[in-house]
Amino acid sequence: MSLRSWLSIPRGSHFSLANIPFGIISTDASPKPRPAVAIGDYALDLEAFTAKNGFSACSIIQPHQTVFSQTTLNAFAALGRPIHSVVRKYIQSVFSENTPHSEILKSNTSLQREVLIPLKEVKTHLPMHIGDYTDFYAGRNHAFNVGSMFRGKDNALQPNYNHLPVGYHGRASSVVVSGTRIRRPQGQILENPVATPKQPIFSPCKKLDIELELGALVCKPNKLGEPITISAAEENIFGVVLMNDWSARDIQAWEYVPLGPFNAKNFGTTISPWIVLVDALEPFMTKGLSQETELLPYLREKRKENMYDIRLQVNLTPESGKTTTIATTSSKNLLFSFPQMLAHHSITGCPMNVGDLLGSGTISGLEPTERGALIEQTWNGKDPIRLEGGEERTFLEDGDTVTIKGVCGNNEDSLVGFGECVGTIEAAINLQPHIG
Amino acid sequence: MSLRSWLSIPRGSHFSLANIPFGIISTDASPKPRPAVAIGDYALDLEAFTAKNGFSACSIIQPHQTVFSQTTLNAFAALGRPIHSVVRKYIQSVFSENTPHSEILKSNTSLQREVLIPLKEVKTHLPMHIGDYTDFYAGRNHAFNVGSMFRGKDNALQPNYNHLPVGYHGRASSVVVSGTRIRRPQGQILENPVATPKQPIFSPCKKLDIELELGALVCKPNKLGEPITISAAEENIFGVVLMNDWSARDIQAWEYVPLGPFNAKNFGTTISPWIVLVDALEPFMTKGLSQETELLPYLREKRKENMYDIRLQVNLTPESGKTTTIATTSSKNLLFSFPQMLAHHSITGCPMNVGDLLGSGTISGLEPTERGALIEQTWNGKDPIRLEGGEERTFLEDGDTVTIKGVCGNNEDSLVGFGECVGTIEAAINLQPHIG
Repeated sequence: MSLRSWLSIPRGSHFSLANIPFGIISTDASPKPRPAVAIGDYALDLEAFTAKNGFSACSIIQPHQTVFSQTTLNAFAALGRPIHSVVRKYIQSVFSENTPHSEILKSNTSLQREVLIPLKEVKTHLPMHIGDYTDFYAGRNHAFNVGSMFRGKDNALQPNYNHLPVGYHGRASSVVVSGTRIRRPQGQILENPVATPKQPIFSPCKKLDIELELGALVCKPNKLGEPITISAAEENIFGVVLMNDWSARDIQAWEYVPLGPFNAKNFGTTISPWIVLVDALEPFMTKGLSQETELLPYLREKRKENMYDIRLQVNLTPESGKTTTIATTSSKNLLFSFPQMLAHHSITGCPMNVGDLLGSGTISGLEPTERGALIEQTWNGKDPIRLEGGEERTFLEDGDTVTIKGVCGNNEDSLVGFGECVGTIEAAINLQPHIG
Repeated sequence: MSLRSWLSIPRGSHFSLANIPFGIISTDASPKPRPAVAIGDYALDLEAFTAKNGFSACSIIQPHQTVFSQTTLNAFAALGRPIHSVVRKYIQSVFSENTPHSEILKSNTSLQREVLIPLKEVKTHLPMHIGDYTDFYAGRNHAFNVGSMFRGKDNALQPNYNHLPVGYHGRASSVVVSGTRIRRPQGQILENPVATPKQPIFSPCKKLDIELELGALVCKPNKLGEPITISAAEENIFGVVLMNDWSARDIQAWEYVPLGPFNAKNFGTTISPWIVLVDALEPFMTKGLSQETELLPYLREKRKENMYDIRLQVNLTPESGKTTTIATTSSKNLLFSFPQMLAHHSITGCPMNVGDLLGSGTISGLEPTERGALIEQTWNGKDPIRLEGGEERTFLEDGDTVTIKGVCGNNEDSLVGFGECVGTIEAAINLQPHIG
């Protein structure tokens, strides 16, 4: 298939013809959320495109076209990967030069006006209804750094770490789409950890952090009591998004024993709006971190190249300042893949549903400039980082904007990118009227 | 209001006129799940009752009657506690002797045949769509026992324990209604904790346990970033169910550091089918465990009697054996109330949704016979318990049925009970075809 489009797609666009990511959009003129794909500087409104018989030459989707008038992508995702694959290729064909489907839109400028909306006029929404959200901890460099900080290098990783993808159940209701403002959380903090008795104070979080992650969205359910096998698991993944799992480190330090992080993680988790399909990422598979341990059979993958090589970047922009890139790394810095996470998660018989979200865990490379969380970058606040323009940061200040970007490929005409995952910190709410 | 009913309600029924719990039912003849209340030995089919103008004398529900043709109680719950209260009182009035509404059903036997279904002919379903499930750890006697087991009595409770309701996010997709069979989970177990290096095996769980809990269901949402205050929190709770949070202790012991229990808890959590409204439980409020610590203001409740005094019982029935009551206690053995849990959970701005489930944590009294988990009863398997008929148990065997019961009140004609929360253990699935 030709990857040249008749549509003008700017060089360096994340949304080249090689990508075709799916999302949910609305516009001022048409405020109902509906499915779309991103291509170049446009969104193709799939509800409108369907209504105008845009899929008339794509027979496989014909019986299912109502999926494109839903307010989430769950129904489309539930059709399964073989159908996603055909639909993506069909849309590529519609936008390509010299294919049987080139003429559907190319020479029909009135149809173009109806179905192609400039991305800058589009509002994006949470792309799926997320039933359950699970966050893993598969970024071994991150786990090692944080473990070293609190337990020393020799005990940095717990004995289970290399044997299974450590994870915990997260809070689905607080997953939000890129652009949603994040209010600084409040809660109990132990300011003086050595005083006895230990007496927490009530305070806005003073150690507000980011976590650079990938998120995977599930497209195939399994029943209670029936595990997903490692060989089948890849078929259960719809696509991937960028994720920022905002974390309140001081709240976490006090609350987390013995049952794990709770309020430190439930005030907001931001995901990027465009779901990049597994098919689009397939050319960018590579090896992840080397497994030092022989895994139990239920976690053994046949493929050796099981990680996505996505170039990731974290930018921090103070309210009145310049943007600083505070981290760059690759998503290959993970010890376990999403299929391994699914196989482990469901080995007990835990049922997964369409729309469930799996977080990878914080992704950090080996170098200090590759660290995906401020707690690592500043070694728990001891070593501030310097921003362009002279400001320093240990953790996030009110008004700070964090932007995660991710992109695959080297040819500027055929990038497979995620766009941005953005959040700005708002000051904590005044609780005095409530608790004073 | 008279609490004598014209309907014959057996003495000792959990579903007296003082109760009126809500659930979701279906029958062989009418398989669509729909709302109902339990009364005596019957379910009042609220969809049918509505269709026959049963609510014609209850004006407040008139504009909202479609809530009774939903497949979950979420829409009814979302109407708010003032409406639940009126509807419950109206139904009490319909079933009472000598009220303005007595005649609606009492003398209309053909209507009775259409709307009253014997409970033994009814299939119950999960009563709400549960968006997120959170499990707390507020049973201090349980926390103390388990902490003593693993860290000794002096360090049994972590420093945060008395200051906040410790909790963790659970797995909503694995919450099931009473009667659903629970398959023994499999996973990684460290059989020899002292050998180095630590090498887990793959095995069916050998320490399958129960947790005697209450569950509370949320009826009022809060927005991201906007905490629920302690004084408002009670209005956000729809009602209460019995809960068994099945736990795989050996899987938990290996996996739980540093992010808490995960696969040990995601293969099934059973709740009783009938939601007892907060109004029905109000007469049974009492003091909980005494707080040894001054709480921060956001957790201070005005009312002193903030716990339900529900008599709880756990029965164990082997596949071919007699039933043994293995624990009896009261639900007042909690350190934090559901309103405190809600205030804490949302203090960060975490959004709660209608249908969210909060687990109390395992409820144990001080005596050995009052312990709500086998790990406490058998001190992690060291001291087996003896069952009627001579069998012994450390943890659950395949074929074991666990039945939790709960009831309030002393007058056998006006009990407010929960019915039963039941689950039977199935053998682990054969995974050889998958992983061999």
